[in-house]
Amino acid sequence: MRNVQQQWREHWLSKGNIVEIDSPTITPESVLQASGHVSAFNDHASECNSCNGIFRSDHLVEEYHQNPESLSGADLDSILAANNVTCPSCNQEDWADSRPMNLMFSTKIGATRGGRQAYMRPETAQGMFLTFPMIQRHFRNRLPFGAIQVGKGYRNEISPRQGMIRQREFNMAELEYFIDPNVEAHHDLSKWDGVDFQLIPDPRDGEQETKNMDIGTALAKNIVRHATVAMFMAETYDFLTSIGADPSKIRFRQHESDEMAHYASDCWDLEMNGSYGWIECVGIAHRGCYDLAAHEEATGTKELRAWREFDQPIEIDKEVVSAIGSVVGPAFKQQAGQVTEALSELEIIPTTFPFELTLKDGNVVNIDDSMVKVVRIQETIRGEWFLPHVVEPAFGLDRIIWHLLDHGYEMTSKEGEEYLILHLSESVAPYEVVVLPLFEKDGMTEIAKELQSNLLDIKGIGVYYDGTKSIGRRYARADEIGVPWAITVDYESLDDGTVTVRRRDDQSQIRISIDDLIHHLQSGSLQSVF
Amino acid sequence: MRNVQQQWREHWLSKGNIVEIDSPTITPESVLQASGHVSAFNDHASECNSCNGIFRSDHLVEEYHQNPESLSGADLDSILAANNVTCPSCNQEDWADSRPMNLMFSTKIGATRGGRQAYMRPETAQGMFLTFPMIQRHFRNRLPFGAIQVGKGYRNEISPRQGMIRQREFNMAELEYFIDPNVEAHHDLSKWDGVDFQLIPDPRDGEQETKNMDIGTALAKNIVRHATVAMFMAETYDFLTSIGADPSKIRFRQHESDEMAHYASDCWDLEMNGSYGWIECVGIAHRGCYDLAAHEEATGTKELRAWREFDQPIEIDKEVVSAIGSVVGPAFKQQAGQVTEALSELEIIPTTFPFELTLKDGNVVNIDDSMVKVVRIQETIRGEWFLPHVVEPAFGLDRIIWHLLDHGYEMTSKEGEEYLILHLSESVAPYEVVVLPLFEKDGMTEIAKELQSNLLDIKGIGVYYDGTKSIGRRYARADEIGVPWAITVDYESLDDGTVTVRRRDDQSQIRISIDDLIHHLQSGSLQSVF
Repeated sequence: MRNVQQQWREHWLSKGNIVEIDSPTITPESVLQASGHVSAFNDHASECNSCNGIFRSDHLVEEYHQNPESLSGADLDSILAANNVTCPSCNQEDWADSRPMNLMFSTKIGATRGGRQAYMRPETAQGMFLTFPMIQRHFRNRLPFGAIQVGKGYRNEISPRQGMIRQREFNMAELEYFIDPNVEAHHDLSKWDGVDFQLIPDPRDGEQETKNMDIGTALAKNIVRHATVAMFMAETYDFLTSIGADPSKIRFRQHESDEMAHYASDCWDLEMNGSYGWIECVGIAHRGCYDLAAHEEATGTKELRAWREFDQPIEIDKEVVSAIGSVVGPAFKQQAGQVTEALSELEIIPTTFPFELTLKDGNVVNIDDSMVKVVRIQETIRGEWFLPHVVEPAFGLDRIIWHLLDHGYEMTSKEGEEYLILHLSESVAPYEVVVLPLFEKDGMTEIAKELQSNLLDIKGIGVYYDGTKSIGRRYARADEIGVPWAITVDYESLDDGTVTVRRRDDQSQIRISIDDLIHHLQSGSLQSVF
Repeated sequence: MRNVQQQWREHWLSKGNIVEIDSPTITPESVLQASGHVSAFNDHASECNSCNGIFRSDHLVEEYHQNPESLSGADLDSILAANNVTCPSCNQEDWADSRPMNLMFSTKIGATRGGRQAYMRPETAQGMFLTFPMIQRHFRNRLPFGAIQVGKGYRNEISPRQGMIRQREFNMAELEYFIDPNVEAHHDLSKWDGVDFQLIPDPRDGEQETKNMDIGTALAKNIVRHATVAMFMAETYDFLTSIGADPSKIRFRQHESDEMAHYASDCWDLEMNGSYGWIECVGIAHRGCYDLAAHEEATGTKELRAWREFDQPIEIDKEVVSAIGSVVGPAFKQQAGQVTEALSELEIIPTTFPFELTLKDGNVVNIDDSMVKVVRIQETIRGEWFLPHVVEPAFGLDRIIWHLLDHGYEMTSKEGEEYLILHLSESVAPYEVVVLPLFEKDGMTEIAKELQSNLLDIKGIGVYYDGTKSIGRRYARADEIGVPWAITVDYESLDDGTVTVRRRDDQSQIRISIDDLIHHLQSGSLQSVF
């Protein structure tokens, strides 16, 4: 898991305009009210009146509907009834009306009475929206830029299932990429020319079917609706294959319009195939300005906006009404300020006097022609403040790790017996190397232990020593837990300082010197010596 | 923070017998009942009857007692009264009796009614105790071994203060190192010969005073009471100085006996000095078998024990009482099993009959000599199960990071103006390198951006580009945020592919080729080229 997290981080940070942040997991209620999670982060639950068992309503009806997560409570209830769905616990058919249940873990900040209502964060994304002003300052206000966060997310599931696939506490990794919607995004997608992506576009009216095409074509045909979304789909594909996912078991499914959040303009799930079938592992969504707008509305801050310089400053030359202070002041006394402000905001120059002017506090006053003059002003407007849009790739790391194990798992046979090899990528294997003395005697133990210790000094390398049982048994143990390289210290090592290197994936062996071994591992991999 | 976490991990994982785990932050109540946190994870709080303000009682009396955290509620109340301590909010002196307040964040597992009581973990350590059976299996039952965990800890403080020093949600890093108490620990401490450690030993009876000595001497004099504790103190010192802590601002303070948990046999705080004075940043404690024993008692599992093979198997040759089944069976019917068991457990061979035998259920039966025979048995006992002891170094990462900033902060002057340099160690600086075109024209921009992109491909390196304002201003900005290396692309670069490398710490510059630059950064540091 640490290795997957680290690879993920490096994948995005190496783009140069992305920064990592870390925000608290305990989140005050006001934040999640603004984001909509307090009112809308719900699953429908159905309670059995007979045994009081509680189940997710959409799970109960999943045989009877293609997309049960999108159904309303009333629809769920009627499907339950129409299909005589019985309780998985007691087999009775006696359902109470389904109810929405908020899925956040609730807690209080402050150990004393009262305390402030809070929740464990349902996603890491809110941290990036709240710290947007700092992130923008970090990048000196130059869009586009992004922020990533890796950490725990919490979802108080009604009925967790499928092991690592659906947990109440899970590892997330999210990227929020902020863009100016008025600037057309250009990304060089030619790197992926000829790479076949499995896409299942929103069927609009027709059937939903898988199409194979490269990402540039999908964008050109407007199947993928935004260039930045296309770029993140391709980058995500690269990331997953670089850590060992099987490309043939990756596909992208576009959200249908009724499944997509109302503010999103394009949304794709990356699904991975494994023993549970196709499972959503990453969501890539164009969220518009929904999130920043929601926090702006809740807080009234102006710090969530970015500045857009116009190509050409706009010169404004216009006539405006201006209050004559020496008349307005005595005439309106305490109200004079409000009158002056209301006059300056008039869009149309009044031509008939007196006229009625509505103040900010709702009062109406009469203005006669002695109180105002018309003046000509010139202004240069160099730009404007706007809410950036955001494209969000959100990764469920536990699900991805589960699929790496699934894709890497190969049950084969050797000498008539079952033989397991776990083909973990070198980039994420917990142990890159095992060091094995052929026998634990005649000095081989010492050489092997010293070698282990020297290899452990190389940054980021996991190495263990295994001295017991036959060498074949020890190779098998290493293959089973996915160690890419097994180094054997034998009698020849005592004479000439060479060792054998065995490659897990094809069990081929070569002999090299310990110095060369160390050198190759320092520069990244033993793959090059084969 | 990520870099400090990563350095910490690598420091311990490179020992070869330590593994990293990741356990949930939401912890069922039963776990924390077993560990003692439900009943004892408290601070005393005093409430002001006048304004209802609530404060930590030990903070209110800290001027009047050396070690207020160790005081009882009654002692705290009497010190408040004796010194006429007033409320920091309203200045009245009207305190309610202090009350213990549990400091855990409370929540419920399960979104439906009922749910199970749980808490956010107050420390990561419990995760290592709960998974001890797996960790032991991972190391094939060979003590000593350790497990580390890096992650969030939670403490619902009554009154958080001192910024990053005392937070409600914080970053911890803990190591639990399991040892056999019967095996004398040997650690080679000669590596630290001549390194002066500042130690403040438990004064026992005398005054508490700082002693400077090397760690081997402190162990030999029994000031440090256990070799493994000494080894971890020295390793911790190495870790902190390797990430940039000032060695003169590190000291170790031994817990006094009334301050140390009752089960601990030796406990040292590593304190770092900064603008808040000396602050505890690491605790290194020999915890005996307290934790594993507590979980064994709560769960009844035997999986928390390790197996100790005797050097010599113990041969036992003894006489025991054995029930004669054909007599005991008919005589005691359903009770016969209990009678047989109770007889087999007799330590002394009975010589007078009949005698009274107490059964497990408390009943007493009469045994006459027709019911038993004395048999001679021989047994070989090869070893025994025991509870491992644990030595725990526990790190508060936020406090450590705060002190790295404090130790690295140097306000100096340049051309008559204040000039700030942040001396962050290369191993933890967020950005290792900034790339600066001398001017953003004549092709320098392109070379600089390409160089940034090539450097970003090097694993684990943070690089940014800065093109605006004068070169002096940009150097200053980089010095201020602690970037160790500034690379400048200038007119000469256009001709011969060389750049200048400027070292933050002494502002010296050298000129090298871009190829050399990349090569040196790939192999770890630019320090060697100066």
